[in-house]
Amino acid sequence: MNIMTLQVISENKSFSGMQTRYRHASEVLACDMTLAVFLPEKADDSNPVPALLWLSGLTCTDENFTQKAGAQRVASELGIALIVPDTSPRGENVPDVADNFALGKGAGFYVNATQSPWQQHYRMYDYIVDELPKLVKASLPVSDRWAISGHSMGGMGALQIGLRNQQLFQSISAFSPILNPTATRLGQAAFDLYLGASGDEQNNTSREQYDPTLILESLSGESIPPILIDQGTNDEFWQDLLRSDRFNTAASNRAESICYQLQEGYDHSYFFVASFIESHLRFHAQHLLP
Amino acid sequence: MNIMTLQVISENKSFSGMQTRYRHASEVLACDMTLAVFLPEKADDSNPVPALLWLSGLTCTDENFTQKAGAQRVASELGIALIVPDTSPRGENVPDVADNFALGKGAGFYVNATQSPWQQHYRMYDYIVDELPKLVKASLPVSDRWAISGHSMGGMGALQIGLRNQQLFQSISAFSPILNPTATRLGQAAFDLYLGASGDEQNNTSREQYDPTLILESLSGESIPPILIDQGTNDEFWQDLLRSDRFNTAASNRAESICYQLQEGYDHSYFFVASFIESHLRFHAQHLLP
Repeated sequence: MNIMTLQVISENKSFSGMQTRYRHASEVLACDMTLAVFLPEKADDSNPVPALLWLSGLTCTDENFTQKAGAQRVASELGIALIVPDTSPRGENVPDVADNFALGKGAGFYVNATQSPWQQHYRMYDYIVDELPKLVKASLPVSDRWAISGHSMGGMGALQIGLRNQQLFQSISAFSPILNPTATRLGQAAFDLYLGASGDEQNNTSREQYDPTLILESLSGESIPPILIDQGTNDEFWQDLLRSDRFNTAASNRAESICYQLQEGYDHSYFFVASFIESHLRFHAQHLLP
Repeated sequence: MNIMTLQVISENKSFSGMQTRYRHASEVLACDMTLAVFLPEKADDSNPVPALLWLSGLTCTDENFTQKAGAQRVASELGIALIVPDTSPRGENVPDVADNFALGKGAGFYVNATQSPWQQHYRMYDYIVDELPKLVKASLPVSDRWAISGHSMGGMGALQIGLRNQQLFQSISAFSPILNPTATRLGQAAFDLYLGASGDEQNNTSREQYDPTLILESLSGESIPPILIDQGTNDEFWQDLLRSDRFNTAASNRAESICYQLQEGYDHSYFFVASFIESHLRFHAQHLLP
């Protein structure tokens, strides 16, 4: 089997464009993966379109954003593709943690695991940064101009991947992101599992590269892409798990690049994402379109 | 327990308004029901807002339209409430048909059953026409100006209920409706179950009142509310189960009231509903708003 092949699972016309669900073999993750792609009507080989890569949160697959965010309407109007991968490797052979929604399947945290038995499959960082964009650009009428966004764990992924790969992404945004995982219970548990217990100097070093707050601090004095973050004030995870305080300190003299907005009364759900996805798409369009 | 009480299950801010899921006891259906309501920000007791009543299709609950249609954005802009009931009575005591998605729970067909053991609970017609609107208007800041819409089985329900209760609904719309259930296998099976086998003269009479095509024919020469119907040409159920031919014959000299639109390439899914819900809401707003 050619690993660089997208097999169509389903196709649904949506806002004059096409919403397609694919299956493909991933060499990096050593398993089959699903992938959702929305292509606006005008996308074709003679007119490749820019893309927004969306990273989803804990427990999600490629279907949550695709079905609940309502992003296709504005993506169709703007002529932007939506690329929505799954949140972890999948399949019977992939290790998992029973009864814990925040570890294992559905909780890849967009890192490259270094610990056994996770390191064979849990390489979501390489998948998102390298294999997936190559596969999409080789198979679909999508240009090299990409932006990255995500929700919760996926907002964390969008920020760390976007900040570390500025040549790949023109702009970054996030909804309710986990901003400082090394300082939170949930992030520490995931990093302990995938990257090894903290206290080991090498392991501590490897965690910092996945923490948006620590990455931003490490880029002090360097230019960064434009960043838009929306956070609901009624988000049940905000104070404990998302931890915006230290990030906002690091961002405090970055007003030309970082816009962090509190949205009164909104919670952590996709009702929040749906309410503001239009403004994120228009933000990215400023940087993606000529 | 006061049966006219809405108990909040969940609340999510959405497009400046509030999406709420309720549980309530239904006297008509003799069981507890869930109900989803979106209220635009400006709705309050001194400013009751008009409402769109949405009837969902087979297998759905109140959650499908609420999560997938993206209707809150335009409802918020227009100041219209969205009232989304479940599709059948629910609960352990409610009879069901195992392994058949088109009969029993999730498939109430918006009729009043006359046959045992269905007649105790399966009274969705009376619930939708009478109990539910009274409960909503008594409990929430919603005015007397209502429209009705729905998808598939719910499109059938919207047409038959809207045409038979013109004093209650200012306008009617439907996506991919079952237009002529007495002429289709799936409709006949449901009507056999709930209303009794055909061939019995009384039973045949009672079926006609639930068939949008037969109702429209029976109203020949009488005025009807404005009706908008959208149907995807790539809908896998269109020719066999939805049966638009005879309805369109009856509608052919009703161009002032009925707009039946084919939408090229769209299928039966909520991706289709999401693509055109804005135009339905704006259509209803013409008739709901001063």
